[in-house]
Amino acid sequence: MANTIRILGIDPGLRKTGWGVIAVDGARLSWVAHGVVAPAETLPFSERLLTLFDGIMAVIEAHRPDEAAIEETFMTANGSSTLKLGHARAAGMLAPAKAGLSVAEYAAKEVKKAVVGTGGADKSQVAFMIARLLPTAGSPTADAADALAVAIAHAHARTARNRLGRVA
Amino acid sequence: MANTIRILGIDPGLRKTGWGVIAVDGARLSWVAHGVVAPAETLPFSERLLTLFDGIMAVIEAHRPDEAAIEETFMTANGSSTLKLGHARAAGMLAPAKAGLSVAEYAAKEVKKAVVGTGGADKSQVAFMIARLLPTAGSPTADAADALAVAIAHAHARTARNRLGRVA
Repeated sequence: MANTIRILGIDPGLRKTGWGVIAVDGARLSWVAHGVVAPAETLPFSERLLTLFDGIMAVIEAHRPDEAAIEETFMTANGSSTLKLGHARAAGMLAPAKAGLSVAEYAAKEVKKAVVGTGGADKSQVAFMIARLLPTAGSPTADAADALAVAIAHAHARTARNRLGRVA
Repeated sequence: MANTIRILGIDPGLRKTGWGVIAVDGARLSWVAHGVVAPAETLPFSERLLTLFDGIMAVIEAHRPDEAAIEETFMTANGSSTLKLGHARAAGMLAPAKAGLSVAEYAAKEVKKAVVGTGGADKSQVAFMIARLLPTAGSPTADAADALAVAIAHAHARTARNRLGRVA
């Protein structure tokens, strides 16, 4: 257990931010917890952001991850949506940063490639592989499954880095 | 002094976030403090956001504003810039939200109209009027002057609301 580290994955969104925590021991992955933070849409904008920040901070306090990873945001054709997503993503990044965790960033394609083997995988393929890789996770919603996928992508990336580190 | 409230104005930006605090007593405005938070560009992205958040939080602890106001972000043609600005703005909003302050939002045009009298005013006109309205402010940089302008716009807007409230 001494070499086990916990990774928090975050799938950012203003209406719903998915999160997932996994434990990594060498090549072995196991599920710890997942969920979604969904601020009431009737709240003032600053309080919606605060709900996301506080929600992720509560997850960190409850599950004590060692590192965090977040999906890179794609730019939509709609500038206003891009701007809102940027705000939500910042709230999701600031909570782990405030807690002293590093926050790695992965493009959606990298996440899909890490989990399914191809960057062009769709949501159902990601959900299928999450159920295979983390059987105790049950059936997470799409947002939580994406967050668990980001955590897995980070687990693979850091294992690859460690392996390269040992070779060098 | 019992009716004096302090307003924190924020002009968000990833490289430089300007801030300014003013005191408002009825129609009388006075300068309290201003400055800029500029995270090192060499930091990881999450830590640049954290530097903005912590910097504005330190301003709040030092100057104890009662309310906050922030400029609305314009969307640039460049989606990537819009996205980064959204992140920086969220960091600037989250600090006062976390401190329990309301965070009002004003379009750049509203801010210029409140300070200069016309929404089409340029930066030099804003700086000139800041020097007139807040003579003890000295010569703030453009970012801090814009932040003081946002605070003044909020002071005017809340005074107008109070006046309407009394009439009704």
